[in-house]
Amino acid sequence: MNDSLKWLDEPIAAPDEKTMQAATLRQSQLTKPPGSLGRLEDIAIRFAGFQRDLNPTLTKIVVRVFAADHGIAARGVSAFPQSVTAQMVENFTRGGAAVCVLSRTLNADFLAVNMGCLHDVSPHAALVHSPIATSTADFSTQHAMTQAQMHRALKLGADQTHAADLFIGGEMGIGNTTSAAAILAALFKLNPTTITGRGTGVDDATLAHKTELIEKALVLHKEQLTDPLAILQCLGGFEIAALVGAFIASAQMQTPILVDGFIATAAAALALAINPGVKPWLLYAHQSDEQGHQLALQELGAKPLLNLNMRLGEGSGAVLAANIIREALALHSKMATFAEAGVSGAH
Amino acid sequence: MNDSLKWLDEPIAAPDEKTMQAATLRQSQLTKPPGSLGRLEDIAIRFAGFQRDLNPTLTKIVVRVFAADHGIAARGVSAFPQSVTAQMVENFTRGGAAVCVLSRTLNADFLAVNMGCLHDVSPHAALVHSPIATSTADFSTQHAMTQAQMHRALKLGADQTHAADLFIGGEMGIGNTTSAAAILAALFKLNPTTITGRGTGVDDATLAHKTELIEKALVLHKEQLTDPLAILQCLGGFEIAALVGAFIASAQMQTPILVDGFIATAAAALALAINPGVKPWLLYAHQSDEQGHQLALQELGAKPLLNLNMRLGEGSGAVLAANIIREALALHSKMATFAEAGVSGAH
Repeated sequence: MNDSLKWLDEPIAAPDEKTMQAATLRQSQLTKPPGSLGRLEDIAIRFAGFQRDLNPTLTKIVVRVFAADHGIAARGVSAFPQSVTAQMVENFTRGGAAVCVLSRTLNADFLAVNMGCLHDVSPHAALVHSPIATSTADFSTQHAMTQAQMHRALKLGADQTHAADLFIGGEMGIGNTTSAAAILAALFKLNPTTITGRGTGVDDATLAHKTELIEKALVLHKEQLTDPLAILQCLGGFEIAALVGAFIASAQMQTPILVDGFIATAAAALALAINPGVKPWLLYAHQSDEQGHQLALQELGAKPLLNLNMRLGEGSGAVLAANIIREALALHSKMATFAEAGVSGAH
Repeated sequence: MNDSLKWLDEPIAAPDEKTMQAATLRQSQLTKPPGSLGRLEDIAIRFAGFQRDLNPTLTKIVVRVFAADHGIAARGVSAFPQSVTAQMVENFTRGGAAVCVLSRTLNADFLAVNMGCLHDVSPHAALVHSPIATSTADFSTQHAMTQAQMHRALKLGADQTHAADLFIGGEMGIGNTTSAAAILAALFKLNPTTITGRGTGVDDATLAHKTELIEKALVLHKEQLTDPLAILQCLGGFEIAALVGAFIASAQMQTPILVDGFIATAAAALALAINPGVKPWLLYAHQSDEQGHQLALQELGAKPLLNLNMRLGEGSGAVLAANIIREALALHSKMATFAEAGVSGAH
């Protein structure tokens, strides 16, 4: 592996088994029928392992929304004009987007990261300016990015992670469901018609056009689509590469990651293929309504927490689901045990 | 209808259609692809109609957990001894139960209501003392309660509702999944084997015994199980009757109701059968792992918000789901519109 990518392979520690066992025992002592808090119990046990603490808390939540433009968008694959990428970045910095509203109620540490937009974005305290280029190239005719661009995007993503209780990576980029669908089709050898969906809401003709472009790209790059980094370089976006880097770096610093929707799942799939040690640090927030997300989750054996027919991206589903994690941890730490409450156990 | 039940039939206003239309328009103007917040959009629109306010909020949440003992429990239908009902009421008043932990994080107005337990419960500021009897009668051999007891339980439930942004009714009562399964079987003419589940976690032999007792009761009371109030009297519990009364009274004062799991759903089904005007005021929190809950939700055409394999009761799933409602309303009120943010709309 190229020297500038060596960090991707650095080993990732597993969550602490002993603390997880102690947390499992605590769950069995809480005043409820065994197992009756369902997935909330699993969440608490996993976070005990993440934090090596029998009473884990969800206090420091880092939310980073990576934004970038896509060459493929010029081919007419979205319901929205490309100018919307930069406009939404401004909306992120001013706090008007869904992910911002949700991040505020969680008191999360929120920043938008400009990874490269066609249009200028005004400087702002809530914006990290890290543009790699004004856009990726059109992946239906050439590599989406150069190796050097990909290396930089991965590293800039990693730079945005911190030791925290939870990392959430969001994305914005007109055209990026096209890129994510192409990545998932290449990585899991799926038929583009099954994995390609309507994104922001394209009509039948645009969906067919989008699918054809992906099919064409898979043929064009066929020889190179043999490893996850090559797939990322050929078909990815700067914000997707940043997510991949951020996910791997988060796991390396033992910060769990709550994966959002379709595009974040494509990035998680690449991160797992690059460094399988990421796996125990990933949680999946929600099943998106974007066609193909359910299929991608199946490929990953992932069971998301929520299914509320959301398909917005930005990390919005993950920030919403973080509320559930916070409650799961509160229950684990604050419920009384049978002994404390003087409640009889089962017969 | 008996004079002391006349209040059950009092008309229930519908949520305000005009405000819902205005809220639907606002949703289409927020900076997101149309429909991309999925069910969060529907929630916000419904609450706008509930509150006759384009910017609804979830501030005042009333949580009442009704507890009572069941005669049927003496027949050995639960994994836990009957003493647990009163012990859990003490746990509610001291804040150690799941529903208390969750209510605190929401800053909800929480009280436990003793509707009649076999064992004494110490007085406490967080406890309403309204016992009807020490227990219902064994419904496999006689009516669970007298008419007078039922009337009182319905009214005591209604007395616990207030004009609020949301009412959540929880329950506690060893044996009450047996009562709820019998109610649902009678109301929807379902086979007891499909609707009867493991409750707190009984083994195969106890499940078979529990199902047989329900079958026997349905035969015994057959002639009387022709209307919802008779079903409640023959097969119900004091806490279930209280929930029915609370749900109807909440809807009458235009307070929406978030229905918890299996037992609360049985109460909601009775409330709907008694006064169909309740319907637009009901939201369903989660799909419980209790066998039969999915079936009951199907009968009601209800689609719950969460599915986290919970089966604890107490209102715990509803208080958890209230977090989702609060976020849905925050998004609705606080996201920027396309015009405010200077973001271009779809092509």
